[in-house]
Amino acid sequence: MKEFWSRRARALTPYTPGEQPRQRRLIKLNTNENPYPPSPWALEAIRAAAGEGLRLYPDPEAAELRETLAAVYGLRPEQVFVGNGSDEVLAFCFQAFFDPERPILFPDVTYSFYPVFAALFGLPYRQVPLDENFALPLEQFMGGNGGVVIANPNAPTGRDISLGDVRALAAGNPEAVVLVDEAYVDFGAQSAVPLVGEYPNLVVVQTMSKSRSLAGLRVGYALGDEDLIAALNCVKNSFNSYTLDRLALAGAAGALRDPEYLRTVTMKIASTRDRTADRLRRMGFQVTDSAANFLFATHPEASAKALLDGLREKGILVRWWDDPRIRDYLRITVGTDEEMDALCQALSELLEAEE
Amino acid sequence: MKEFWSRRARALTPYTPGEQPRQRRLIKLNTNENPYPPSPWALEAIRAAAGEGLRLYPDPEAAELRETLAAVYGLRPEQVFVGNGSDEVLAFCFQAFFDPERPILFPDVTYSFYPVFAALFGLPYRQVPLDENFALPLEQFMGGNGGVVIANPNAPTGRDISLGDVRALAAGNPEAVVLVDEAYVDFGAQSAVPLVGEYPNLVVVQTMSKSRSLAGLRVGYALGDEDLIAALNCVKNSFNSYTLDRLALAGAAGALRDPEYLRTVTMKIASTRDRTADRLRRMGFQVTDSAANFLFATHPEASAKALLDGLREKGILVRWWDDPRIRDYLRITVGTDEEMDALCQALSELLEAEE
Repeated sequence: MKEFWSRRARALTPYTPGEQPRQRRLIKLNTNENPYPPSPWALEAIRAAAGEGLRLYPDPEAAELRETLAAVYGLRPEQVFVGNGSDEVLAFCFQAFFDPERPILFPDVTYSFYPVFAALFGLPYRQVPLDENFALPLEQFMGGNGGVVIANPNAPTGRDISLGDVRALAAGNPEAVVLVDEAYVDFGAQSAVPLVGEYPNLVVVQTMSKSRSLAGLRVGYALGDEDLIAALNCVKNSFNSYTLDRLALAGAAGALRDPEYLRTVTMKIASTRDRTADRLRRMGFQVTDSAANFLFATHPEASAKALLDGLREKGILVRWWDDPRIRDYLRITVGTDEEMDALCQALSELLEAEE
Repeated sequence: MKEFWSRRARALTPYTPGEQPRQRRLIKLNTNENPYPPSPWALEAIRAAAGEGLRLYPDPEAAELRETLAAVYGLRPEQVFVGNGSDEVLAFCFQAFFDPERPILFPDVTYSFYPVFAALFGLPYRQVPLDENFALPLEQFMGGNGGVVIANPNAPTGRDISLGDVRALAAGNPEAVVLVDEAYVDFGAQSAVPLVGEYPNLVVVQTMSKSRSLAGLRVGYALGDEDLIAALNCVKNSFNSYTLDRLALAGAAGALRDPEYLRTVTMKIASTRDRTADRLRRMGFQVTDSAANFLFATHPEASAKALLDGLREKGILVRWWDDPRIRDYLRITVGTDEEMDALCQALSELLEAEE
């Protein structure tokens, strides 16, 4: 029908997140969640906040959480913005920093929410093709555009770029904002946070959904120059006074007080990832070098779609896109060692059955 | 500086929420929070959800909460949309239903976030003056506009309109969406929810922040025709896949399972409100007839700003706006009986000191 829809709404093609099954018995390697529980400090802080105080609004400025993040990253609270998951933070960035005159640039293979945000806010964009190995052609992101959006490590490829590359992007676009989406950075890439303060046009977005095991809590943040953060606050305060509830504020701050847990969990996942990549390669898969908590793999003799369906029949969910550029690939979240054993076993059965 | 701000961001004047003091000893009658704690069912559901499951994303469709709301209001889940507080739900409504060609209408004295949303999304609007008693001139909201937004009861006046009036608005604007913001409806106004299904252009927005004592949890919802709800989902899924975290989903559903608690708390607050209004009138205040959990009061011989400042010195926060139309008024949230005793005592001291 769409009788009463605005024109903007009629023109939208929403982002499709990976399936979130209501039944739990599946091995879920499709949405890059962390297989390990959140830090006990996070859970304790949430339970302490789950009381009478919920009758009161949260702090609209999230001062305590911003102070905690600032201390963790060696920044000032004025350089920190928090939001309801990094998707919301990214959406606010698109509204706050980009204009309709000049196109935003991002790779052709990257987080598929970027073109959706652009459409929602009426912003033009240009998708720059990655090379055949999904490497970033840095020189094609230099100058003359309305902004640059790069995921590092990239999704769904897992490939990362160096701090020098980020520096080159920030320096090469002095008149536009360079947004680095570091959702997966804690699993092995170099963070650009040390460049905040050096480049007034650099904004780094991170999330507590992946490395901090808090996808269910919806906390993301942006780190950048005070003037960029002020723009995000201006947009946020024109949209929703209180984007983070009291439990999310408490749990996020609790998790940040446990750096040792973050280190242990991310090292464990990186080690499982690398061992699984080796096994997949021995099975004939080509696997990109991933700095993230997922693997991006293709097999010369098997259809990725057939493997996706076969895995699903065996109770294992992974992710696949019906997109010409990456149709031969599966994106596989790194789970526990046991889950990856089950995955490899299932894949080798499927490959044998194909022969 | 605003060097890297988008033009849209530069043009914004954000909404200013009431103060949320970090110290707790004040009597806080400034942001219409509920003085009573949330239902124990809500707290229990949150504590049960505060575990390992937080490593997983929430259900992006919030199916369980939408089913619970549908059952409470006698609707189908497809007629229910949930969001991160009613501010977010309202923002999505502005994006989903209104176009730049025809102005949206709302009263000149109402929730001051409406013009902010309009500016954020580049939508024109016209503010229709309420009469001298803050009553709604219904005939001025009929036809030829791009949408109608009405708070019922209205904020900050507390005045309500009848179900017949809402029916007239929906019938009188067959080509535009009529949005009824029922944030305060549970404290004594007639809800338009029974008209959902009858009018395809009617959307009703409610919140769990006020009557359910869950301002700290950020849960709001819209009830309307399936086609309107589909438009909201389309906008939401182009902005943030998961706007409600697992704890908010659980707590909100828990609260809804306790209708008796809602009834008890809202009746108690309505009774405190009416008794306080009588006392204020005996002190010489003119007080609008409020169907909400706040009072809107003016005194012929005292400056509202002076009373605001005087109350603050005595540790009591209320709300005042530097707006020519309502500069002589204070908006006072209804707290506990003890808090209202302290308020009346403080006001009578301030009035005596003025004489």
